[in-house]
Amino acid sequence: MLGAFPEEGVWLIGRVREKLMARKMFLGCAESCTGGLTSALCTDVPGSSRWFRGAVVAYDNAVKTRLLKVDEALLAAHGAVSGPVVEAMAKGALEALDVHVALAVSGIAGPDGGGLDKPVGTVWIATALRMPGESSAREPQVVSFSRIFPGNRIDVRFGAALGALGAVDAALDGLGI
Amino acid sequence: MLGAFPEEGVWLIGRVREKLMARKMFLGCAESCTGGLTSALCTDVPGSSRWFRGAVVAYDNAVKTRLLKVDEALLAAHGAVSGPVVEAMAKGALEALDVHVALAVSGIAGPDGGGLDKPVGTVWIATALRMPGESSAREPQVVSFSRIFPGNRIDVRFGAALGALGAVDAALDGLGI
Repeated sequence: MLGAFPEEGVWLIGRVREKLMARKMFLGCAESCTGGLTSALCTDVPGSSRWFRGAVVAYDNAVKTRLLKVDEALLAAHGAVSGPVVEAMAKGALEALDVHVALAVSGIAGPDGGGLDKPVGTVWIATALRMPGESSAREPQVVSFSRIFPGNRIDVRFGAALGALGAVDAALDGLGI
Repeated sequence: MLGAFPEEGVWLIGRVREKLMARKMFLGCAESCTGGLTSALCTDVPGSSRWFRGAVVAYDNAVKTRLLKVDEALLAAHGAVSGPVVEAMAKGALEALDVHVALAVSGIAGPDGGGLDKPVGTVWIATALRMPGESSAREPQVVSFSRIFPGNRIDVRFGAALGALGAVDAALDGLGI
């Protein structure tokens, strides 16, 4: 179970941590297929309370609608593993956890649940970002993308967590400060 | 990072899973010091969506009050690592995640944050339980206890996750069905 996180991940979390702390920003997560793994990796680092605030593990769709305010119609129209849903999850996490950067992950970790259009390993990732002090009335910057991760359930989950943290790293670079 | 989950844990999750599925009950987590690790372990198991619904990783106290409805006065009076607070977290998770069994964990994983009265490794654990179909107006069954886990940050976090899952196992045994 779980297994070792790749060295690349340790390095990546260090980068994200530095960038968040330099900007006095806080991270939060909305996790579906990774089921808390991304948050567990972040909080593995001593002192993570200075940049990590919390997460909603929305494994069941009811949690996505209840705590992350994802519209049921969006889930019905696109499915939980889709761009519109991860974007809504990231925006929902930004508000629910009151953070500046939120990542969202939803995918098919397998071994079951895959289909022709969305094979096992398909993962959608989103980030939502709002600068400290910026009004919550202003729409956050949101980016989403999908990837197909090879390997077994553990590989897909670690890949997805790493991919989501990489997306946060890129979003923070985009700030250019 | 993370490292291997002890064999005892794999066996324990199997037991919890069997008992939940036999009773058509769903589990949810409220995690502070474990930061998503307990949920990551549960969802590591294929098919976990049949018994695991989600989690609130309430690393920051603001998330405890916001999403788990823990009273700020309770946090101020007892501190986040205390019986009253983990009981409130478990009850809050029962409602927020709409599950039958909720576990809550709050502790001092270290290396910093320990004190004379609450040394590093101190962890409070609670479970809250309500039978399927039982009115949400009825008070759930709540149990809490504390333990001091030895070792480093990773040891304390794995110990706390294992302790919380063990408490769920015991709570389900107490149902006598």
